[in-house]
Amino acid sequence: MSKYFNNVPEIKYEGKDSKNPFAFKYYNPDEVVGNKTMKEHLRFTMSYWHTLTGEGTDPFGAGTMERPWDGETDKMELAKMRMEAAFEFMDKLGIEYFAFHDRDIAPEGKDLAETNKNLDEIVAYCKELMQKHNKKLLWGTANMFNNPRFVHGAATSNNADVFAYAAAQVKKALEVTKELGGENYVFWGGREGYETLLNTDMKLEQDNLARFFHMAVDYAKKIGFTGQFLIEPKPKEPTKHQYDFDVATVLSFLKKYDLDKYFKVNIEANHATLAGHTVQHELAVARINGVLGSLDINQGDLLLGWDTDQFPTNIYDATLTMYEVLKNGGIAPGGLNFDAKVRRGSFEVEDLFLGYIAGMDTFAKALKVAHKLLESRELEKFVEERYSSFREGIGKDIVEGKVDFEALEKYALNNSVIKNKSGRQELLESILNQYILNE
Amino acid sequence: MSKYFNNVPEIKYEGKDSKNPFAFKYYNPDEVVGNKTMKEHLRFTMSYWHTLTGEGTDPFGAGTMERPWDGETDKMELAKMRMEAAFEFMDKLGIEYFAFHDRDIAPEGKDLAETNKNLDEIVAYCKELMQKHNKKLLWGTANMFNNPRFVHGAATSNNADVFAYAAAQVKKALEVTKELGGENYVFWGGREGYETLLNTDMKLEQDNLARFFHMAVDYAKKIGFTGQFLIEPKPKEPTKHQYDFDVATVLSFLKKYDLDKYFKVNIEANHATLAGHTVQHELAVARINGVLGSLDINQGDLLLGWDTDQFPTNIYDATLTMYEVLKNGGIAPGGLNFDAKVRRGSFEVEDLFLGYIAGMDTFAKALKVAHKLLESRELEKFVEERYSSFREGIGKDIVEGKVDFEALEKYALNNSVIKNKSGRQELLESILNQYILNE
Amino acid sequence: MSKYFNNVPEIKYEGKDSKNPFAFKYYNPDEVVGNKTMKEHLRFTMSYWHTLTGEGTDPFGAGTMERPWDGETDKMELAKMRMEAAFEFMDKLGIEYFAFHDRDIAPEGKDLAETNKNLDEIVAYCKELMQKHNKKLLWGTANMFNNPRFVHGAATSNNADVFAYAAAQVKKALEVTKELGGENYVFWGGREGYETLLNTDMKLEQDNLARFFHMAVDYAKKIGFTGQFLIEPKPKEPTKHQYDFDVATVLSFLKKYDLDKYFKVNIEANHATLAGHTVQHELAVARINGVLGSLDINQGDLLLGWDTDQFPTNIYDATLTMYEVLKNGGIAPGGLNFDAKVRRGSFEVEDLFLGYIAGMDTFAKALKVAHKLLESRELEKFVEERYSSFREGIGKDIVEGKVDFEALEKYALNNSVIKNKSGRQELLESILNQYILNE
Amino acid sequence: MSKYFNNVPEIKYEGKDSKNPFAFKYYNPDEVVGNKTMKEHLRFTMSYWHTLTGEGTDPFGAGTMERPWDGETDKMELAKMRMEAAFEFMDKLGIEYFAFHDRDIAPEGKDLAETNKNLDEIVAYCKELMQKHNKKLLWGTANMFNNPRFVHGAATSNNADVFAYAAAQVKKALEVTKELGGENYVFWGGREGYETLLNTDMKLEQDNLARFFHMAVDYAKKIGFTGQFLIEPKPKEPTKHQYDFDVATVLSFLKKYDLDKYFKVNIEANHATLAGHTVQHELAVARINGVLGSLDINQGDLLLGWDTDQFPTNIYDATLTMYEVLKNGGIAPGGLNFDAKVRRGSFEVEDLFLGYIAGMDTFAKALKVAHKLLESRELEKFVEERYSSFREGIGKDIVEGKVDFEALEKYALNNSVIKNKSGRQELLESILNQYILNE
Repeated sequence: MSKYFNNVPEIKYEGKDSKNPFAFKYYNPDEVVGNKTMKEHLRFTMSYWHTLTGEGTDPFGAGTMERPWDGETDKMELAKMRMEAAFEFMDKLGIEYFAFHDRDIAPEGKDLAETNKNLDEIVAYCKELMQKHNKKLLWGTANMFNNPRFVHGAATSNNADVFAYAAAQVKKALEVTKELGGENYVFWGGREGYETLLNTDMKLEQDNLARFFHMAVDYAKKIGFTGQFLIEPKPKEPTKHQYDFDVATVLSFLKKYDLDKYFKVNIEANHATLAGHTVQHELAVARINGVLGSLDINQGDLLLGWDTDQFPTNIYDATLTMYEVLKNGGIAPGGLNFDAKVRRGSFEVEDLFLGYIAGMDTFAKALKVAHKLLESRELEKFVEERYSSFREGIGKDIVEGKVDFEALEKYALNNSVIKNKSGRQELLESILNQYILNE
Repeated sequence: MSKYFNNVPEIKYEGKDSKNPFAFKYYNPDEVVGNKTMKEHLRFTMSYWHTLTGEGTDPFGAGTMERPWDGETDKMELAKMRMEAAFEFMDKLGIEYFAFHDRDIAPEGKDLAETNKNLDEIVAYCKELMQKHNKKLLWGTANMFNNPRFVHGAATSNNADVFAYAAAQVKKALEVTKELGGENYVFWGGREGYETLLNTDMKLEQDNLARFFHMAVDYAKKIGFTGQFLIEPKPKEPTKHQYDFDVATVLSFLKKYDLDKYFKVNIEANHATLAGHTVQHELAVARINGVLGSLDINQGDLLLGWDTDQFPTNIYDATLTMYEVLKNGGIAPGGLNFDAKVRRGSFEVEDLFLGYIAGMDTFAKALKVAHKLLESRELEKFVEERYSSFREGIGKDIVEGKVDFEALEKYALNNSVIKNKSGRQELLESILNQYILNE
Repeated sequence: MSKYFNNVPEIKYEGKDSKNPFAFKYYNPDEVVGNKTMKEHLRFTMSYWHTLTGEGTDPFGAGTMERPWDGETDKMELAKMRMEAAFEFMDKLGIEYFAFHDRDIAPEGKDLAETNKNLDEIVAYCKELMQKHNKKLLWGTANMFNNPRFVHGAATSNNADVFAYAAAQVKKALEVTKELGGENYVFWGGREGYETLLNTDMKLEQDNLARFFHMAVDYAKKIGFTGQFLIEPKPKEPTKHQYDFDVATVLSFLKKYDLDKYFKVNIEANHATLAGHTVQHELAVARINGVLGSLDINQGDLLLGWDTDQFPTNIYDATLTMYEVLKNGGIAPGGLNFDAKVRRGSFEVEDLFLGYIAGMDTFAKALKVAHKLLESRELEKFVEERYSSFREGIGKDIVEGKVDFEALEKYALNNSVIKNKSGRQELLESILNQYILNE
Repeated sequence: MSKYFNNVPEIKYEGKDSKNPFAFKYYNPDEVVGNKTMKEHLRFTMSYWHTLTGEGTDPFGAGTMERPWDGETDKMELAKMRMEAAFEFMDKLGIEYFAFHDRDIAPEGKDLAETNKNLDEIVAYCKELMQKHNKKLLWGTANMFNNPRFVHGAATSNNADVFAYAAAQVKKALEVTKELGGENYVFWGGREGYETLLNTDMKLEQDNLARFFHMAVDYAKKIGFTGQFLIEPKPKEPTKHQYDFDVATVLSFLKKYDLDKYFKVNIEANHATLAGHTVQHELAVARINGVLGSLDINQGDLLLGWDTDQFPTNIYDATLTMYEVLKNGGIAPGGLNFDAKVRRGSFEVEDLFLGYIAGMDTFAKALKVAHKLLESRELEKFVEERYSSFREGIGKDIVEGKVDFEALEKYALNNSVIKNKSGRQELLESILNQYILNE
């Protein structure tokens, strides 16, 4: 019973040889991989903004997207149409989760009171549809970057009125996220950063950001919101320098301001590469520091210097991402959110589905490859063997804190001709290829 | 009485209109700027490696440098010639400080014992020359990257024997630095990082790095070395991903492992830009976190993706660097170390002097501009005014922790139409230009 | 008699020590530099789009700019207000030239006929104001990138209807440019490129682009438009790969399709750096190939990967730009067009003026420095001397084509121990600094 | 009968499930793909430099490679050992072609005459071994970048003596290449470019480069060398700006100097990405301009800014490379040369083999995928359909040159509401994945 996407059928798994563009080739939701189904592992999430409100603009061009709700001029009516379409979209793709910014789902009013009223009305409708369609909210967040009031930042604005406005907005977004049973709440500090140090008091701005986060923690406690708090690192764009540059920067900030026990990170592939890291690096840093919370899956173009948010189709990145997720014991209560948009030239409604299919198939295949790779322990055994010198003799003493520089010098004076072994990078890349191509 | 550089005269200040290439146009060591002489402010430091041992190789070419000690084949004799030349060089330029790696000044022997013996012999000679020429050691460090034994890292090697060797090497370097009255000790983790996560146990490697630093702290205490410990961030090159990516990453590491009270950072301009930051950003992050320790001055080429270590001649970067240094209350016990090398095509001995003159003049001019800019408080007043909303009313309440989300929402509901002011970036850039061009 | 910018006075030259933000410190239009006034040398040009129609949007935020014509909803009325404001703006800054895209000055109508009618009406008004205010058109161009119809390109679209539309649009733009006495006509192929080769016929697209250019040349001849045709290279953004990557790519295209005698290039600083070149490189390549036609002056941020179009305030880039312009014998009939926009945070009307003042002062100073540098021939003499071996002996024979490999081998066998001289890069950078800081 | 690599067996095809590191999983030399065997399609070539003479140095570290000829100090003896090892290496891997620089195979002597004598001696030995082992020379070239004499360039040096020396060197290299039956001759202008325009006469340098190429063409004709001449584009490193930036730049140069009928290009993947292009872009530009001559296969790291020359293991790049090669009708007389080196940490002899196996398997698989993709015409049909408007009606008229701007305006006025179709990038990426993962 299709109202918005009647040209597109329900997307089903047809297997790897299917030539049907509107079918999954690898994503088979109920297929068991290890001890869970694909669906449970992957926790795919629809991003409300790219899917429902994205228009296909770019810095040199107007929107191109053709959508069933084009032409509707009443903003609240439009909001409802999009909300209905969202659930139809999730149904057709078999996606269980969604994520949104407050302003994605309901329009701003003439003042904050009216804006909140608009939001309440849509949230009520959303809740109704969630029950009807059996969907869940992965996370909510507040859009504190689009409106001109945030031109100089939100929690890091030089203008205290903006800080207050942002606080009110996050308060409301937390309430709404709780109301809809959101399992996480995300902070992406789009405007929290600076353009030039010539006009910026970085210390005050970062102190204020910490104050803001503490207030958020306190308020969540007060209202009994028990979802996970997540910070999403990004190094640049829109501001020249953003305060949440990468995972390590976020960790440094959280520790400095005694916030580390309250936050994990939401890692986006394209943000990782903008910071000069592979996404696997960022995932690994998060994992070994116990803060790997959730994923915004997409891919960037390393020959371009901005956030392209493409649908993830690179099997290498997806496989290594799932490898880290599996080593993390899964990603729940986080998920795999498609922070991905169809290209500006893919402006037909069908492309929305084709983009999700491309991404879901890639991650389904990646999950299977990563699982098999981890099960085989082929890489794990290589790494264990490679570091085996730290499980015996002088290495064990080092790890156990039994030796100091003097003891080590004594040892080294007798062991100064050293034999290393190859790191075998080329072989390991071959093995990875074999798993990917043979799975 | 020139032995090595007899074609080059003593470099004197001749003023801005001098056409003499072998004269300072802006660096006038005894000129007072604010409350100190230029020399006291700038604490210029000769880098031993680039100046005495650099050969002008690049990934596609053999060394080009022509030096007075070319042809000497006895390694210890060569080491002594270079040491003598170093002091003659500093004398001619009026530079008071130098910095070195252990392996810059003395050659490796057949084993660690002989290597240490070589080092001791040269250090004794160095000490004698320091007294004779009235020079000081800014910092010492250990070269744990050139020798093949460090192929997989030093403190983060997978091989415990390498960890032990590195420990012995730093132990000795600390002793030597103390012996020569070094005011700081630097760690640059050239090989501390990884090439591929396929073969890497990042957690163990970072844990080991922390163990290594704790041992260094303990040993310094034991021998009474009271110089400042410095970590030098760098994001990539030689390894694909280095553990000391940038200042924020170092801070996160230091806090995690309870090392933050023992270390400051040594910031290099070219490393900042490789990490995607301006050098001023890195300096400001260090300053507001209380860890701005010392500087490796040079400049990179932002159109190239590797560390070019050029002599610093960009007046903008130099001015903003000195601006941060002045706001930091100076850089001592750190200094301004010329981690800069003449281009491969500047292979004549004269170029060494011309490079230093270029850099010293640039920073002398920059000091004067920065001082005048800070004295005028033109930028400072703009910034103060810009953030004035946090010194009264709701902003003051925020800063003083008197309000929470509920109070802020109440405020925002009555103040949701917000008036911001321009950040005036273009005007501020004009003002900076005026200070630079008029000083 | 100010109608739009009544808070801003006429901008006058007050000299380098002026503290008045609304005054020139270096740009003194009638000051003679060499054989021309500053005004004649610099041919400053107002960009209509950034100045009149730019809104301050970015990929994550709505427009921030506050303009006197905000609130006007009638599109033609708005177009006239902006046109009047444009001339008031030029008057206040003493700018003689402007440049525009067809769609900057007049709105699209319901179809092409109405669009053309709108354009005619505004062009007539523009002509009237040009005479009244004594202003000239540097160049016109057609905006073939904003409208969704150009989603897959204009002259390189896969859709022949789009090619036809683009042809009609350029035809009209040529007529309009002629009508207003435009001295040049610019092609910037914003959408002429591709996103992915998976769906692209690069050969057909480039053949069509050449066909388009030939038609433009023919039509200009037919209507007697004698202005210079200019192509503006840009490597990426909005498309992943644009066909006019850089000057060399444009040259290769022009030669392949026998278009080289009809076109020169319009070089933009920020486009040069996006292509991995300095702007001086692009200028020099154009100059030595006889195609240096005009300049879009601005500056990018080399730590960011997109076109930031900042007002040019870097004295180095400006000086080296003017150095190339002077060596080119000037830039006329081209000019220095401010393809620069105020930062999103500089949203007040005053900032528009402050941005232009910043840029005009920078280039005025740069002109003086470059002129002095060229007059002194200090660099020129160094270069001449450096290549002197090609003006005598074997070098002269090489240049004059008198020797072949066999003769050269004979020579080399007797001259295989070669003495090179230093390239003196550090000294030359010092000299450049001295000219900039002392001028 | 193994003399150098006795720990490594002959590498045989064992199929995709083999766990033997020293076996091919995908490369089955005699397997027919389309109308040729894999071996005939791929024309794999051993690079002499990376394989035999590479030492594993990097800008911060000494060589790490462990080789059977370590310790041999007689330079000619060493050269012979490496030559013998080269053929044993090719035999074990079943590689038919090799490529070298003159200085890879024989050491420089005390002057050019002795250097040539050394070269002649080794070439004679090489020829003998080629016959014995049934191997062929893909191409020869002259190393005009390593020796300090080339510090300021070879054919573009400011020193005429260097030009002469380079001419003599290329003359000899051409003779040697002819002697060994080389099918191509490559020019990589490592030092042909500049560091700073402050000391550079770009016009003279490029004119000289053209003179040099003309002399080479003339000399080849004279001695009857009929192999293909190839230029290898590279944008930067070692020089800041190299004259052969990319394929388009090379085309522009060749056309300007009437050299275009004598040269094709040798495209290296890592050079393409350093220039900001995908390798497929460079291949396509070359193909549609009729100059796709040969390939240096490797891969770079897009997060690093230098030429890493890694063994190619990325199946996407390899597939799209082979797709272009197949569309080109094959690559002969060029080949697929492994301009790839094992990582510095992969220093054991075994890694040399493992690197080649990784690369050969990747390209074998890629060939099969590309062949199947091309056979299916799935992409080709999509592209044909996408541009179908240029095969009828107004589009046909455009292509056939039957319409001008006036005719097109007339058409457009009646067709100004335009309907475009989606470019379907996401779907096409899915299809590519399906071919790769299912093949």
